[in-house]
Amino acid sequence: MTPDLECLFSFLRFASVSTDPGQAGEVQACAHWLVELLQGQGLLAETVATSGHPLVLARNGHRAGRRSVLIYGHYDVQPVDPLELWETSPFEPVLKGGKIFARGATDNKGQMMAHVLGVGKLLAAEPDLPLNLTLLFEGEEEVGSQSLHQYLKEKKEELACDVVVVSDTGMIAPGVPTMGYGLRGITALEGRVRGPARDVHSGVYGGAIANPATVAARLLASLHDKEGRVAVDGFYDEVQPLHDWERALWDQLPDGDQEVREATGVSELFGESGFSSYERLWARPTLEVNGLGGGYQGPGSKTIVPAEAFFKLSARLVPNQSPDEIFGKIQKHLEANCPGGVDLHLEQGHGGQPYLGDPQSEYGKAAQEALGRVFGKEPMLIREGGSIPIIQAFQEELGADSLMLGLALPDAQIHSPNESFHLENFEKGMQLSQEVLRGLAALP
Amino acid sequence: MTPDLECLFSFLRFASVSTDPGQAGEVQACAHWLVELLQGQGLLAETVATSGHPLVLARNGHRAGRRSVLIYGHYDVQPVDPLELWETSPFEPVLKGGKIFARGATDNKGQMMAHVLGVGKLLAAEPDLPLNLTLLFEGEEEVGSQSLHQYLKEKKEELACDVVVVSDTGMIAPGVPTMGYGLRGITALEGRVRGPARDVHSGVYGGAIANPATVAARLLASLHDKEGRVAVDGFYDEVQPLHDWERALWDQLPDGDQEVREATGVSELFGESGFSSYERLWARPTLEVNGLGGGYQGPGSKTIVPAEAFFKLSARLVPNQSPDEIFGKIQKHLEANCPGGVDLHLEQGHGGQPYLGDPQSEYGKAAQEALGRVFGKEPMLIREGGSIPIIQAFQEELGADSLMLGLALPDAQIHSPNESFHLENFEKGMQLSQEVLRGLAALP
Repeated sequence: MTPDLECLFSFLRFASVSTDPGQAGEVQACAHWLVELLQGQGLLAETVATSGHPLVLARNGHRAGRRSVLIYGHYDVQPVDPLELWETSPFEPVLKGGKIFARGATDNKGQMMAHVLGVGKLLAAEPDLPLNLTLLFEGEEEVGSQSLHQYLKEKKEELACDVVVVSDTGMIAPGVPTMGYGLRGITALEGRVRGPARDVHSGVYGGAIANPATVAARLLASLHDKEGRVAVDGFYDEVQPLHDWERALWDQLPDGDQEVREATGVSELFGESGFSSYERLWARPTLEVNGLGGGYQGPGSKTIVPAEAFFKLSARLVPNQSPDEIFGKIQKHLEANCPGGVDLHLEQGHGGQPYLGDPQSEYGKAAQEALGRVFGKEPMLIREGGSIPIIQAFQEELGADSLMLGLALPDAQIHSPNESFHLENFEKGMQLSQEVLRGLAALP
Repeated sequence: MTPDLECLFSFLRFASVSTDPGQAGEVQACAHWLVELLQGQGLLAETVATSGHPLVLARNGHRAGRRSVLIYGHYDVQPVDPLELWETSPFEPVLKGGKIFARGATDNKGQMMAHVLGVGKLLAAEPDLPLNLTLLFEGEEEVGSQSLHQYLKEKKEELACDVVVVSDTGMIAPGVPTMGYGLRGITALEGRVRGPARDVHSGVYGGAIANPATVAARLLASLHDKEGRVAVDGFYDEVQPLHDWERALWDQLPDGDQEVREATGVSELFGESGFSSYERLWARPTLEVNGLGGGYQGPGSKTIVPAEAFFKLSARLVPNQSPDEIFGKIQKHLEANCPGGVDLHLEQGHGGQPYLGDPQSEYGKAAQEALGRVFGKEPMLIREGGSIPIIQAFQEELGADSLMLGLALPDAQIHSPNESFHLENFEKGMQLSQEVLRGLAALP
């Protein structure tokens, strides 16, 4: 157990689940712990209070005229349920078979800690590194980054930078350096279908009133056609076709269909017809049910017509779709398709713009070289299916593209039970952080 | 508080929820308590062990040549969830505004206790009542009466009787005596749609694999057409049209549409087009979602493609539909409509035949007269939407029709939070039990 790993384990022990109001204290405690660690690395660090969970901000001594680099990460994590599927306790990290198991091991604490410790090592070796570094970590990435969005708007001058460095994206395979240049956006919503004033006997009243669970199912079924295409009017209106150079790049990647089958365990793939798995995941928008429920949930049967049913949806967006516009189209579709006899209540959830950067900019090239030096191979260039809405906000508010140096492997099981992080990626990540900053410092 | 009411309260305090394995001890304790009570009424009483919950059997001294009457009831109750909607504790009965509030108050402990105490009073007054009485109570009515079905088959000679008396059905309105002569049957099933090996990130994998929640919704949506008709092939094949005399009788009842609106709180009715509410509820089969679930159930959002989704369904059946045949048709429909990329697992639940008796038989007329004497009005004749499969079994195994002397009022909220029983119906129920037995004893 190295001191670096010890440090990551301490970080992973905080149950900093941002979506759960019951864990707000853990999120707060994690932020304070992080500030002390950053101060120990010789940085000026502080928490920044927000209306939600605190931000953590750290800087080296800034000087005018130097290139500015913002390093971004998040210290909040996804919920752990279903807890019974975890083989080890999600907040008691374990090193097993070269992997660190814990909630947040990859997403994002492991990747983020590689940068925190990498920066510390680099500044210890080169105290006069000619870069103005700002480390900015948030506690609301898993719930929409609302406070950070607000903060970016308020402090756009102070945070102005030339480029952003982020490790919160995927790596194609172990040992294969990977840089991302695109992300899908997101718009989330929750729907509730209300029928009778309370659960009623399905023998006594079934057949004479609308069943909210049936209505919810019919609404969800109306969202796609049989070929997996989203059936919401105008959903694809703004979608840009894939560039030829991208399709050519992605053809060099390992077989995407097999990757998806292996990672998810499904026997057969399903998606929008006419597209490959990489295209479906990185360049096409989707509309997924994240949760649904209603009526009796216990063992055996209970013969009721339930009083209500709910569904949680999220759409992944691609350039140039807008979260608000897509929410509006889904809302219009659901309201138009909802029959009488029930009430439909819709609530918009978090949203984020899609992002597309240029992997061949001077910063992009510097990052590719750093990846090549650390891993000893040409990096792969990919887009991602996930959403980091704040990356789009960095582009909009600070005018800076993000270098997405992904360290998340396909088997990491982020957002799932038994999340893990390869120890090798933690170690290479610390080197990568130093190499990329050295590269950026060396640019003319 | 009368001793009779005290006795009912003690009965209601048992949490005899038959579907919950965790409450098996309470169900058992309730059966033993009941035996002691029946013995105290001067009857020969015992529990009968089964592979499930025990039966309770009691008799007066039988003599050859007398008319035999079986009194049936059930001491098990529905689950209480959602518990948070109860205004008082479900197993701590409370008398408020002339009603007794508790789980099972109406269904079926209150109605059943009226007979237990009524029989006790009658035998005290007329120890030589010329009837062979058998009281038969079960603890599995809410889960399909499997043990009692078995017992009827095994002991059909010992249980042979001329007529069955049951109070487990509805009463049109307070003070309006009501006799039921028909019940819907039921067939229940549970379906589970399995996709990825675990919940997976909806950004990373959403769009390239089938979503089990979406598949479940599409399957449920396929079960009905827009006009509320069940779309399962052959579902209506065996359904008999309503007789003219029944339609004429039901036209005299209070407005069924308004009854349903008031009892359920819906603003608008919905059901199979072309039928009145009474017809939809009593004479037409249905297929209802009793519960569904899958994916994230907590507060906020969790961006996953869930590993699985489930649904619990039940169909209400009318003469001459068969539970097994209808299950088979639904199974065939769901399997035919399930797409690739997911696995569908179906499990058949409990089932029961529909029932239709003759309200104008000599026993039916005796029951109508008893109802008229106790309530001072002509009784209404109705069918019911609910299912008491054992009533059908009494007809098949014992050759006896059932006199359904309903005491369950529309506002009783059976199977729902805040179930109640009108104190008046408890008192009238005890009189009714005595009157109907006197009437049956007096028949030539």
